[in-house]
Amino acid sequence: MPQHIAVLGGGLIGASWSALFLAYGHSVHISDPDGSADAFCRGFVRRAWPHLRDLTQGLPDHPPLDRLRVSSTIAAACDGASFVQECGPDRIGPKHAMIKEAETALAPHVLIASSTSSLMATDIQAQAQHPDRILVAHPMNPPHLVPLVELVAGRLTSPDAIPQAEAFYTSLNRVTIRVQKERPGHLANRLTSALYQEAVNIVAEGIASVEDVDRAIAYGPGMRWGLMGPHLIYHLGGGAGGYRQYLEHLGPTQQTRWADLGRPTLTDDLIEQLVLGLEQEIKELDTQEIEDARDRALVALAKLKQGLPF
Amino acid sequence: MPQHIAVLGGGLIGASWSALFLAYGHSVHISDPDGSADAFCRGFVRRAWPHLRDLTQGLPDHPPLDRLRVSSTIAAACDGASFVQECGPDRIGPKHAMIKEAETALAPHVLIASSTSSLMATDIQAQAQHPDRILVAHPMNPPHLVPLVELVAGRLTSPDAIPQAEAFYTSLNRVTIRVQKERPGHLANRLTSALYQEAVNIVAEGIASVEDVDRAIAYGPGMRWGLMGPHLIYHLGGGAGGYRQYLEHLGPTQQTRWADLGRPTLTDDLIEQLVLGLEQEIKELDTQEIEDARDRALVALAKLKQGLPF
Repeated sequence: MPQHIAVLGGGLIGASWSALFLAYGHSVHISDPDGSADAFCRGFVRRAWPHLRDLTQGLPDHPPLDRLRVSSTIAAACDGASFVQECGPDRIGPKHAMIKEAETALAPHVLIASSTSSLMATDIQAQAQHPDRILVAHPMNPPHLVPLVELVAGRLTSPDAIPQAEAFYTSLNRVTIRVQKERPGHLANRLTSALYQEAVNIVAEGIASVEDVDRAIAYGPGMRWGLMGPHLIYHLGGGAGGYRQYLEHLGPTQQTRWADLGRPTLTDDLIEQLVLGLEQEIKELDTQEIEDARDRALVALAKLKQGLPF
Repeated sequence: MPQHIAVLGGGLIGASWSALFLAYGHSVHISDPDGSADAFCRGFVRRAWPHLRDLTQGLPDHPPLDRLRVSSTIAAACDGASFVQECGPDRIGPKHAMIKEAETALAPHVLIASSTSSLMATDIQAQAQHPDRILVAHPMNPPHLVPLVELVAGRLTSPDAIPQAEAFYTSLNRVTIRVQKERPGHLANRLTSALYQEAVNIVAEGIASVEDVDRAIAYGPGMRWGLMGPHLIYHLGGGAGGYRQYLEHLGPTQQTRWADLGRPTLTDDLIEQLVLGLEQEIKELDTQEIEDARDRALVALAKLKQGLPF
């Protein structure tokens, strides 16, 4: 059933969520104090629409911009909303202020899902009137193309809020996971940070160039990770004996490598080295060109994953 | 120009390399002391052929099994070979023995590239008659579908060997990278191990289930890693300011997460927990079904990557 969804913050993440919500028939009211947000969000939805049509059955040719509104105040966006996706600045002060204003306009049972990547639900809900309706629903960028949504409850989140949010995001063809403990990076960004730490270390130690690290991922393990996670990959690596065989026979080589991983510090010199390496990698390509190609490829990858049995 | 290639070891990796070499017009002579290797390798090439045809222009309908021989001795396989891909057991003793026998049959300039994932080129070449022709060329499984080949020189490897090997693998449409220092895991498996360490830790700490970790990767960051590496991803994450902007503004949040990453130990209890979690994830799916779907998807992903500008 079409809902009225409030999106608090009309930046990249808010605009991408909005495009997704529109694609599933909902109406969207974005709040953003910046006067340029309206044009930015409409432009974003227009550019995203062909990709969403490619991924979603039965969408009209043109984006339903008549179902999109952008207002300068949170209270206006929340008026009559049945779900709130908060996409404001990732600092606790602004989050508290946004929630305070949202609650003046919302019915008490309406969920407020924060897109925060670095804050905890418990902290975000701390000053709320109805903290039980507040949770974290963290997407990966861009949320209209990457299906993952990580759900995290705070200490005061209602036991019903997570299943309710799950049902909502699943209805949008998102892949939800439950993060059972509040920790920096939730789940997915702990994994990306673990990989990135060694990706930085390899450059810092002179083992390989920035470009070779990126090529190694994109033409090596990354291709497998685009299809399945590390546990399932090593289950296959165990042959007929499966994951147990892998862990018992090759677990020790993992531990040897774990012991040898680096712990770099992002000093000014290392930042220079990384930036220089990245410039050598991308040469004359511009960011827009890379992003456009990435988005087309993400659509194609999402489509090919629809047929997988795992 | 078609070459005669010796593949030492007719297991999964040897069979997959052989299928690739055949697809690029070379003749292949596999050595394996196990009498069942012949049937296994021919069966492997037959099953791999439709995928190779899909990826490679102008291949015949049927696999050219007339260009494939399997012998029980290394000397027979190396007779007349112009390149050797060593895929034997990943222990130093067997490697030394294999190289000793290979050198009785090879011309002195013929490269011997080891597929080892855990040994160092310097150790592998230590007892060789012509250590200068020995290097590591480590693929990801399965090498006929995942393009990455990591090249590592040992202390005694000739300065020409790496560019020569690069030219050979590039002619097979592989993506080569140069690993500048001999370290456990070369490069790619250092990165996979870094990710896996935290993937294990998240389960050990009760942050999420095995299944949710795998879903998070496969429907989240893994989709981006299938297209580009972490440095380029964070360059895009820096917006108009690029990688420097990212590192200066969001580097500190990476360091916060780095400090919070876990250092699990694969105890018997943890292994049980991981195996149980994996069983809950795969339910009734069997390994063959997963592998077949993975291979089809890897072909589709490799094809879609052919059009990318980065």
